[in-house]
Amino acid sequence: MHFDTVIHNGLIVTMNPAFEIIESGTIGIHAGKIAYLGKETPESPVPEARKKIDAKGCIVMPGLVNTHTHLPMTLFRGIADDLPLDLWLNEHIFPAEAKHIHPESVRWATLLAGCEMLLSGTTTCCDGYFLEDNVATAFQGSFMRGVLGQGVIDFPAPGVPEPDKNVDEAIKFVEKWKEKSPLIRPSIFCHSPYSCSEKTLKSAKKAALDNGVLFQIHVSETFRERRDCQKQHGTSPVRYLHDLGILDKNTLLVHAVWIDDADLEIISATGACISHVPESNMKLASGIAPLPKILNAGITTGLGTDGCASNNTLDLFTTMDVCAKLHKVNTLNPTDVDARTVLEMATISGAKSIGLDDITGSLEIGKAADIIIIDIKKPHLTPIYSPVSHLVYAVNGSDVTDVLIAGKPVVNKRKIIGLNTDKIIERVKKLSAYIGQSSDQRRE
Amino acid sequence: MHFDTVIHNGLIVTMNPAFEIIESGTIGIHAGKIAYLGKETPESPVPEARKKIDAKGCIVMPGLVNTHTHLPMTLFRGIADDLPLDLWLNEHIFPAEAKHIHPESVRWATLLAGCEMLLSGTTTCCDGYFLEDNVATAFQGSFMRGVLGQGVIDFPAPGVPEPDKNVDEAIKFVEKWKEKSPLIRPSIFCHSPYSCSEKTLKSAKKAALDNGVLFQIHVSETFRERRDCQKQHGTSPVRYLHDLGILDKNTLLVHAVWIDDADLEIISATGACISHVPESNMKLASGIAPLPKILNAGITTGLGTDGCASNNTLDLFTTMDVCAKLHKVNTLNPTDVDARTVLEMATISGAKSIGLDDITGSLEIGKAADIIIIDIKKPHLTPIYSPVSHLVYAVNGSDVTDVLIAGKPVVNKRKIIGLNTDKIIERVKKLSAYIGQSSDQRRE
Repeated sequence: MHFDTVIHNGLIVTMNPAFEIIESGTIGIHAGKIAYLGKETPESPVPEARKKIDAKGCIVMPGLVNTHTHLPMTLFRGIADDLPLDLWLNEHIFPAEAKHIHPESVRWATLLAGCEMLLSGTTTCCDGYFLEDNVATAFQGSFMRGVLGQGVIDFPAPGVPEPDKNVDEAIKFVEKWKEKSPLIRPSIFCHSPYSCSEKTLKSAKKAALDNGVLFQIHVSETFRERRDCQKQHGTSPVRYLHDLGILDKNTLLVHAVWIDDADLEIISATGACISHVPESNMKLASGIAPLPKILNAGITTGLGTDGCASNNTLDLFTTMDVCAKLHKVNTLNPTDVDARTVLEMATISGAKSIGLDDITGSLEIGKAADIIIIDIKKPHLTPIYSPVSHLVYAVNGSDVTDVLIAGKPVVNKRKIIGLNTDKIIERVKKLSAYIGQSSDQRRE
Repeated sequence: MHFDTVIHNGLIVTMNPAFEIIESGTIGIHAGKIAYLGKETPESPVPEARKKIDAKGCIVMPGLVNTHTHLPMTLFRGIADDLPLDLWLNEHIFPAEAKHIHPESVRWATLLAGCEMLLSGTTTCCDGYFLEDNVATAFQGSFMRGVLGQGVIDFPAPGVPEPDKNVDEAIKFVEKWKEKSPLIRPSIFCHSPYSCSEKTLKSAKKAALDNGVLFQIHVSETFRERRDCQKQHGTSPVRYLHDLGILDKNTLLVHAVWIDDADLEIISATGACISHVPESNMKLASGIAPLPKILNAGITTGLGTDGCASNNTLDLFTTMDVCAKLHKVNTLNPTDVDARTVLEMATISGAKSIGLDDITGSLEIGKAADIIIIDIKKPHLTPIYSPVSHLVYAVNGSDVTDVLIAGKPVVNKRKIIGLNTDKIIERVKKLSAYIGQSSDQRRE
């Protein structure tokens, strides 16, 4: 077979079901897919290809999957930290969104997020925001793979000033993007059980079912949300959604911090998936999700960063490190949430949680060639006893040197191919200058 | 005045008592010290100098201070993770130390640690280990500033096979290094109250007092340590040390996880300082120190990484991020441990906790020119509303481009000056090959 690209000489962490790790491994790519995978030996030398990438001294692995983002919020990175949730939302985030989220800002902030994700090894993300048509158009320009959800909320939102049209707008978005781009799958993102009525939740879920797309929703993020739901509906947020018929394996429950054993049983029985977002939950002081219990219940669980107003980066390597450590200290059990588990969450389990595990999340023949290369010839990655340990506890996003998505090189030696990073940075800086001013005025 | 070096055009975060931040700031360096600090204006243009560093688009700040390391343990980075503490120590760390810690391995592992720290913006560290004379010699070669403590423990240790000579060895080390190197201050590092007898603790403290050097000790790291101390001595580890006369402002209490209000009062009253080591405490599932209470009690507190077997890197930027987030979710209060507080811990408070605040930890006229430059012209650092927010929540060690220690450039555009990084990496890899083999044999 003739290959378009061959990556050879690397330490391949496949993330396949057998969790194979191949020293001096070779990957052959044809028509965007992995067509060959094996160990280089005298009997099976490196095959011929138009392009050869020598990954000597590097780890080669599937691109990471970020299961929860709000891409345009890169615009608000670090705009307000260390504040009580109400003040943070009502005095900073909501006013900034109302004033500064428009098609132009969404475009540049999404491109910026794309650059950041590519440069830190993320090749797929699951996004939920407003003006998602503009997100999708910009996202397409970043060459990344994504599940993109148009936001639904019972308040006036960017691009949807009349809340009673929110589900119609989401349907329009899904229909437009359903077959439009090989790397993009549309989705519906209902903001939360407390910000959407029963009617909205039900009709949004119906639209997702009709179109066979992922239904994303924030749920049980804070203690207050759970308490209020209990008061208002007499039950937990998870059971409330279940009673409305929302939960199935095409449902992604984001956060799921304040959940009990009964909630876990419901989630497990319905096959709904969870996006675990530890850094945002820490920074906003929301709480610590019972991840060991979630995993024990067999619930498919991915890892997410959240938007840049509450994290403040999209570096999923850092999130892996924090995730593995947080749960150990929370349960006082150092064997909880081990490195392999977290690595699975950030790759194959994340892909499964958003319905893309037949395409990405592991290096296997027939899957898309979504591949990242990590340079470990560095002091902070020396010595190496286990690549899995390094990927979770020592690597950061800046160690990623090369990225391929569907076989196409998109990052080469830390330079993004086909995007003018400097221009994107300049445009976002200009947009942020206005935001900074209005934020200063508000503080005075 | 004629300057040796001028750094201009940068966004200077001084960490001085007024917490001044200077846009387009200029720093003039003369004879290793900061001799000028100001804003560039038409009236005060950039002064002349032999060497000019243009820090446009960069943050300029004091080098970070890591208050707890075991430098030679970089050799064991990732050798064993996610294990119960007993198994981790007795099956992996102790055997590896007994077999593989010798003057040659200490030398290369310390140089490796130096490279890693310099490349992630740390210019000062406080170390405690065995064979510290070899650490100090190698450390001197890394051009870093440090407080280096010879280990004291009532067991046979590398270089001290006879425990009854442990304090004498420490005294010998202190006397040798007392005036030897302008960047190195010797110290005594008693391992812990449970691994040293009363006699050892008292005579080690006496030696520290006689020589006017810092006394470091691990204390109240785990619940078990506290419980056992209560059983054995009828009191908490902190009070036990206090009763022995150990605590004063030249004492650095490392970890201090399981401490109560009475312990806090003692620490505060004696002026003893704390090294807070959140990532190691998380990974080993030791517990979460009551940092907001510690800070409220006015105790001088620095930040530490611990050794690379339990973290697994020396990147203090990551530690800052994790520290700020961990305590918010622990207390469910998002205003706890804000970015400025964490930044102070990693700089000026850290310097104060190890007795070096008259020399380093902030950019002020008369202090040593220990300076780092951070490139923020990157997607993950765009836009910028607050440099303090970025330094804690978005920057990682790989964003550091230039480092000066006592005015001497030691990192230039991410290349270490005067050390052969490739050779150091190769030597540590060779040493690790033996360790990996014996570790595999143990597992079989």
